Amino acid sequence: MHEKFTFTLKSTSGGARLGEVAMPRGVIRTPAFMPVGTVGTVKAMYLDQVRELGADIILGNTYHLMLRPGPERVARLGGLHELIRWPHPILTDSGGFQVMSLSGLRKLDEKGVTFKSHVDGSLHHMSPERSIEIQGMLDSDIQMQLDECIALPAERKEIERAMEMSLRWAERCRVAFGEQPGKAMFGIVQGGDQPDLRIRSAEGLKELDLKGYAVGGLAVGEPQDVMLGMLDITLPVLPTEKPRYLMGVGTPDDILKSVARGIDMFDCVMPTRSGRHGLAFTRRGRVNIRNARHAEDMRPLDEQSNCPASRDYSRAYLHHLTRSNEALGGMLLSWHNLAYYQELMQGIRTSIEEGRFADFYAETIEMWARGDIDPV
Amino acid sequence: MHEKFTFTLKSTSGGARLGEVAMPRGVIRTPAFMPVGTVGTVKAMYLDQVRELGADIILGNTYHLMLRPGPERVARLGGLHELIRWPHPILTDSGGFQVMSLSGLRKLDEKGVTFKSHVDGSLHHMSPERSIEIQGMLDSDIQMQLDECIALPAERKEIERAMEMSLRWAERCRVAFGEQPGKAMFGIVQGGDQPDLRIRSAEGLKELDLKGYAVGGLAVGEPQDVMLGMLDITLPVLPTEKPRYLMGVGTPDDILKSVARGIDMFDCVMPTRSGRHGLAFTRRGRVNIRNARHAEDMRPLDEQSNCPASRDYSRAYLHHLTRSNEALGGMLLSWHNLAYYQELMQGIRTSIEEGRFADFYAETIEMWARGDIDPV
Repeated sequence: MHEKFTFTLKSTSGGARLGEVAMPRGVIRTPAFMPVGTVGTVKAMYLDQVRELGADIILGNTYHLMLRPGPERVARLGGLHELIRWPHPILTDSGGFQVMSLSGLRKLDEKGVTFKSHVDGSLHHMSPERSIEIQGMLDSDIQMQLDECIALPAERKEIERAMEMSLRWAERCRVAFGEQPGKAMFGIVQGGDQPDLRIRSAEGLKELDLKGYAVGGLAVGEPQDVMLGMLDITLPVLPTEKPRYLMGVGTPDDILKSVARGIDMFDCVMPTRSGRHGLAFTRRGRVNIRNARHAEDMRPLDEQSNCPASRDYSRAYLHHLTRSNEALGGMLLSWHNLAYYQELMQGIRTSIEEGRFADFYAETIEMWARGDIDPV
Repeated sequence: MHEKFTFTLKSTSGGARLGEVAMPRGVIRTPAFMPVGTVGTVKAMYLDQVRELGADIILGNTYHLMLRPGPERVARLGGLHELIRWPHPILTDSGGFQVMSLSGLRKLDEKGVTFKSHVDGSLHHMSPERSIEIQGMLDSDIQMQLDECIALPAERKEIERAMEMSLRWAERCRVAFGEQPGKAMFGIVQGGDQPDLRIRSAEGLKELDLKGYAVGGLAVGEPQDVMLGMLDITLPVLPTEKPRYLMGVGTPDDILKSVARGIDMFDCVMPTRSGRHGLAFTRRGRVNIRNARHAEDMRPLDEQSNCPASRDYSRAYLHHLTRSNEALGGMLLSWHNLAYYQELMQGIRTSIEEGRFADFYAETIEMWARGDIDPV
């Protein structure tokens, strides 16, 4: 068992990094994709399946969990891992992003944010200290600082104000988190699409000597090249010996290109949310299973996959289930998509280990571009 | 392999019958509970799970399947078993019940029924012959005659008219079905809550020498004792050497009491539908998992169960999932309920085999009456 939270950079291939984040609850092989378990469940999946696909860690949303079942209750029940039957690492976000995107009646100032629950309309206050307190009650292994995330495009002045406040909140979160050797609190680089603000944010966080660094406020409406440009500017500022997490990203293409720039961790609802809407990610690009071309296609999504959802169920059946809004459609396509994401991450890790990430990158992009198998 | 459809009565215990329905696709141990796979999926379940719980046969709804994906398409894809990955027996209803309960703009006469699809508003005609034709295209193993099912209470004249027409339709379905040694077409006893009409219906069907007989038009609003009374009157008229199927029934209590009267087969959406709404059936009666008493109860629904959903997940987690309307809540409770139903059927079969059904009956009723474990 690993008593302390550590990150080991094992090898690199170009800008891509192979590593290992270790902590008492387990080891995360990086680059890692973390399935999102919003409210204590990765939607329409059994967590046993999620684990079997190769997930070393999942993400929980503090905003959702603080409203229901509530952090005090989760703590009384022995923590989130115990409640949801996931003994492996869990990362929780700070709650800030969802407070700002989902809740009503927000009052935001230096102290924190007051908001109205989207569940029952009740009023809540979230400060940097309270966010860390809640994440502690959830017993989360990797906790995130509270930050203010600005939707792009936005005024530079507004981006700067939010970035500076997020830096001050990072310091307050670090103090609130204190010394917890088996766990980590990550800071979050903000600064929107402004290169100098991103650099200022990364430098400020670096001075705090945190155990890991996230890049936030991206994939919030800007084109992919803006996002990648911000990574190119930000990552060189961050210490190489700490893990880097790109929050809320993204498509397989986003992930591949961000790994190439040195990102170690990702989370995104895309595989599960898209799955529930009939969109499959495959080795040969995206497949919209609702499309009529699949209605009488008895071939699976990917006969070479090891995942039963990808290999054993026909497109015709998936098409029928999805068109009929049957739960099993979302169950199978979420399963398939998470399998594909984890297969992609494993491919990335193996290629870095073997020093041929550039080849893997080119082959993967080429396969996506080739597109789906021909219609029957 | 069994080339012919056969029913073997193996033993009895009081009025309860232990038997075996055999056909090319497999053997059904009776008394049997058939999970309902409305539109080609037992809702929120993988069919592998359904099989593993001990289901020998599932039910498909002709009305739903004729609208989507459509019988011609299913036939082109190799039949329903192939499409949904269930190589075991399938029973399909005639479509009549749902035509009358779900669709709009019905015109019903001796020829059949014209109705409007609830999916896209298109007009369809269903005659006894067309129902059998559709069930044939689905490649169903046990097919049901088209009948007219009257909601109770109803006028005697109306019940009689529908019963007599259903008898004539049974004859037409028998002709349309023809000789198919590996499959069966069952007739359906109607007659509402009128003893003499039930007897007349059963006698009329018996003369047709069908391979099995269903009792229909019950559990449609009448009290349980009326339903059981109709069974007491009807079943003695039916030939003992043919399987008897009570359609759309029911609660565990309905099933136990109907087995005691000689019913061999059941189907009902209750375990899955109730599961999606937070209601669990257990050895100790019903448990409404949405109830606040479960919010901090880390005990499982039934620690003695072999089903992971019943044994490994806490009530607190199930409560949280159900309250949060998460898919996993319905997945786990459907799984639990189907496990309980199949466990009940296995208990029934074993007790008949051992000649102690009356004891099993009394013990089971007593356990239900005992109620749930005490709150924490």
